[in-house]
Amino acid sequence: MMKVVVIGAAGAVGKAVVEQLGQRHEIVTVGATSGQYQADIADIAQVRAVFAQIGRVDAVVVAAGSLHFAPLEGFTPEQFYVGLNSKLMGQVNVALVAQEYLNDGGSITLTSGIVADEPIRNGVSATMVNSAVEGFARAAAIELPRGLRINAVSPTVLEESMGSYGPFFIGFEPVPARRAALAYARSVDGAQTGQVYRAWGGSV
Amino acid sequence: MMKVVVIGAAGAVGKAVVEQLGQRHEIVTVGATSGQYQADIADIAQVRAVFAQIGRVDAVVVAAGSLHFAPLEGFTPEQFYVGLNSKLMGQVNVALVAQEYLNDGGSITLTSGIVADEPIRNGVSATMVNSAVEGFARAAAIELPRGLRINAVSPTVLEESMGSYGPFFIGFEPVPARRAALAYARSVDGAQTGQVYRAWGGSV
Repeated sequence: MMKVVVIGAAGAVGKAVVEQLGQRHEIVTVGATSGQYQADIADIAQVRAVFAQIGRVDAVVVAAGSLHFAPLEGFTPEQFYVGLNSKLMGQVNVALVAQEYLNDGGSITLTSGIVADEPIRNGVSATMVNSAVEGFARAAAIELPRGLRINAVSPTVLEESMGSYGPFFIGFEPVPARRAALAYARSVDGAQTGQVYRAWGGSV
Repeated sequence: MMKVVVIGAAGAVGKAVVEQLGQRHEIVTVGATSGQYQADIADIAQVRAVFAQIGRVDAVVVAAGSLHFAPLEGFTPEQFYVGLNSKLMGQVNVALVAQEYLNDGGSITLTSGIVADEPIRNGVSATMVNSAVEGFARAAAIELPRGLRINAVSPTVLEESMGSYGPFFIGFEPVPARRAALAYARSVDGAQTGQVYRAWGGSV
């Protein structure tokens, strides 16, 4: 049994990850406003404070971070920084702090998204930020010490999110969150590093 | 003959791009501290001020932006923001402003780098930022109006830069800047969009 921190545990992905990993691991939940511990991950000081309370762990999963969706025309630098500060640097902050608290051979699993590979209208910041998250994981993997691993999971749109995101993802096959959570399990319980697990419906 | 703005015109890549494109196009040079116009591209207000002076153009090339290189261990959020603010958002700022000044069918060419695909020690920010630049180009391409195009060029290490960067790129085959400049010419004079032109030595 591992001790696994799940950040964004109350989100659609996070809840399914907690359920999937909770079948065999001890889960510590973290959220912006819910969970056993609270932190705004865009602020590394808050990330440090939470890990100082949690102590040593075996795996850290992040399924958190916001992005601004809007047409390219009229997109402002400030709107790009929403995703850069939150979904990108929030996850990077967690990785930077987590490496100090992970036991040997432990893992970090970040979240990107299908839009990294399949651009959509209004998604310029999403493609940019998700590509950056995957690049970070790919590069950090070769420098982590003590057998520590890092991967990213790139989920497609979730069935549970089609109410709000459906109009952006016409023609995309949604997956239930419980299926996307399997990719996180492969990262946490598996042995690969520097990978992007694409949690998409299938060959479509 | 096109009117082409080259930002970062005094750099190793920029000089070669000016020479390559200058064979058949009118070149307007921009630099942080040199060239016909000066702008710190991390500040969109300065980018706007320069384009307001230059007016309508047919192509914009950016070969500018800094990155912090250091071991992952000890890398700080502030050091990640060096590249995010400069090489990533600097180029995004240029793209956002350029779309208003480009003639129909005009192009934007940004610069990423081989480390997006081939991570190296000390290069975690470089892989992250270069991947983000490529993601931005891929996504912006599908939303640009009026037949406007956007691509990224990913150069490997330049022969001209081996003095300073060589130790980071052992085993990489350097290319002379004049060869890397050909990729910019394919983007500017070609017709593709949303591409990453990999300006690497060959099959090695």
